[in-house]
Amino acid sequence: MDRRSFLKNSALGGAAAAGTTLAAPAYAQGNRTLTMVTTWPRGLAGVWDSVERVANNITAATDGQLTVEPKAAGELVGAFEVFDAVTAGQADMYHGADYYFVGQHPAFAYFTAVPFGMTVPELMTWYYGQDGMALHHELGEIFGLKSFIAGQTGAQGGGWFRNPVNSAEDFNGLKFRMPGLGGEALSKLGASVQNVPGGEIYQALSTGALDATEWIGPWSDEKLGLQEVCDYYYPAGFHEPGAALSVAMNLELFESLTPSQQKIVEIASADAHQANYAQFIANNGPALERLTSGGTQVQSFADDIWDAFGNASMEVLNQYTDDDIFKKIHDSAQASMRSSSGWLSESDSAYAQQRNRVLSTM
Amino acid sequence: MDRRSFLKNSALGGAAAAGTTLAAPAYAQGNRTLTMVTTWPRGLAGVWDSVERVANNITAATDGQLTVEPKAAGELVGAFEVFDAVTAGQADMYHGADYYFVGQHPAFAYFTAVPFGMTVPELMTWYYGQDGMALHHELGEIFGLKSFIAGQTGAQGGGWFRNPVNSAEDFNGLKFRMPGLGGEALSKLGASVQNVPGGEIYQALSTGALDATEWIGPWSDEKLGLQEVCDYYYPAGFHEPGAALSVAMNLELFESLTPSQQKIVEIASADAHQANYAQFIANNGPALERLTSGGTQVQSFADDIWDAFGNASMEVLNQYTDDDIFKKIHDSAQASMRSSSGWLSESDSAYAQQRNRVLSTM
Repeated sequence: MDRRSFLKNSALGGAAAAGTTLAAPAYAQGNRTLTMVTTWPRGLAGVWDSVERVANNITAATDGQLTVEPKAAGELVGAFEVFDAVTAGQADMYHGADYYFVGQHPAFAYFTAVPFGMTVPELMTWYYGQDGMALHHELGEIFGLKSFIAGQTGAQGGGWFRNPVNSAEDFNGLKFRMPGLGGEALSKLGASVQNVPGGEIYQALSTGALDATEWIGPWSDEKLGLQEVCDYYYPAGFHEPGAALSVAMNLELFESLTPSQQKIVEIASADAHQANYAQFIANNGPALERLTSGGTQVQSFADDIWDAFGNASMEVLNQYTDDDIFKKIHDSAQASMRSSSGWLSESDSAYAQQRNRVLSTM
Repeated sequence: MDRRSFLKNSALGGAAAAGTTLAAPAYAQGNRTLTMVTTWPRGLAGVWDSVERVANNITAATDGQLTVEPKAAGELVGAFEVFDAVTAGQADMYHGADYYFVGQHPAFAYFTAVPFGMTVPELMTWYYGQDGMALHHELGEIFGLKSFIAGQTGAQGGGWFRNPVNSAEDFNGLKFRMPGLGGEALSKLGASVQNVPGGEIYQALSTGALDATEWIGPWSDEKLGLQEVCDYYYPAGFHEPGAALSVAMNLELFESLTPSQQKIVEIASADAHQANYAQFIANNGPALERLTSGGTQVQSFADDIWDAFGNASMEVLNQYTDDDIFKKIHDSAQASMRSSSGWLSESDSAYAQQRNRVLSTM
């Protein structure tokens, strides 16, 4: 499909839908309940906490003028229907992972994670210190949305394996569960990429329907019991080096809010991004310790595997650069990453490595 | 000095001062201008931006109900007088680096940075995902303050040297500008530690009154022209691996605010922390590139120097653990750091190192 014409059609559809269903002045006065549909099951550890944090932030900071009511996937619309529900004004806002909407536009992947992309500090730099947020707005507005990142799982683990992988060739024919662009990249290594829902991963690994899987990180993975069916865990992965979650509000609704309400939506989302990252790291640390002392073998991929991951990832991303907006976002993100990673690796990473080495001897 | 009795006296003093000057109900209705004294010269790159961001956030999100007016150091009170001005109710809030107030209580150092302490992701984890913020409140409340971190310079560089240092012995007699607990640690290596104000560093290095200095990071250091008087730059340093800036509001004033205003102060500060970090990294990356291509020699400290930094830092921190609150904060921070650093180094750092290696070959 030609992505440019795809984009134009989608844009017109989104704008038209928003225009017919919302009347701006209705939202300008008085208290209002905002329905926030989500792509998540209620209570999903960490992820649902970011839903509640951003909802509670907005409700509390506006003193209830905007009372946000989150809905789990399926309560009002299905997980993957939230995007269209908000562009159409059927719901007021959504909370989800924007890479679920690469069908609407592939550039949405950049506002969750892309393979071989940014770590969380790098994403923060691009999003809050450079063009990232403005580009997110620009992309969302094509579809009648005002988008903000508002949650963060941190780096997702490289995955669980029934047998260790020692070279890029070992991925050939490997039955690996990995969704999205990461999965696309992995299939270039010859893997048989599957998309198995979270609730079915354990069973698929037990029966040998899967040889390996990624899920989220040690905290979430331990809850699924993956350590019971796989002996080998690779903490560092290439596919989602920092996975942001987003809220998006119907654009006409957002524009009808007062400036103070708009500011509250913005900073409530930023707070949720930072706090959710903190929550995941706070829980992943102890979970990794428990897994290790429980017998899980912690491994790292060999250099030639990383070479193959990198080449395949860039090949996947470059497939989309004929689209103008994708290219604009891609170029901005890649340039930012290459610049910020220089300083971060020379300062933060070099420091942390030395500090960890010295403290381990004390 | 016995820190326990010191603390009790300070606490009584702070509470009494706050009690005599503020009447809670006066703040509950209508618009109010809040004077925010700061420890900074107006316009100091990056740092003053975090002052304006938190002030503008609060003003905009409350629709002017709380209009925050920042004052540069010296406009109302001197830089190091802001703490007492706010506890006494002479000003409503301050923005500063809390480690300036180790004289009031040494544990304030933990809410800016301590030597051999946390990186920014680790600090976020502790502060927003664990006990950090609650401990900051507990410490501040002893003095009649409600404290929040609200700015972040990122890791401060290891420093500028006229001649390279090759071993821990090279620090013996070295005239090094470094304030705070980091400077205390450095003096244990035999360095002649000086505290020279920012505006005088260039001259002191030119004349040989200093052999070496730290300042902030490449962006800020380049503005001082340190590359003109020192050939050697060490990006990774031990003394401030992530330097947070704080706002603190008079506690009675804070408690007189409505719940929505309190929530706004909290999330406005959190937003400023994340955005300011992003701004510093966004500017440090290109500055490091300019410095390198301008001829600055980028160096890293040898392992035995890091060993010495680590031992000296722990010795300095352990001096204060006879104080109950210091010990509580110290133990909480150290335990958090050791746990989160395990996951962060195995996932984020390992990933970034491999990604940077692969991308450099493309």
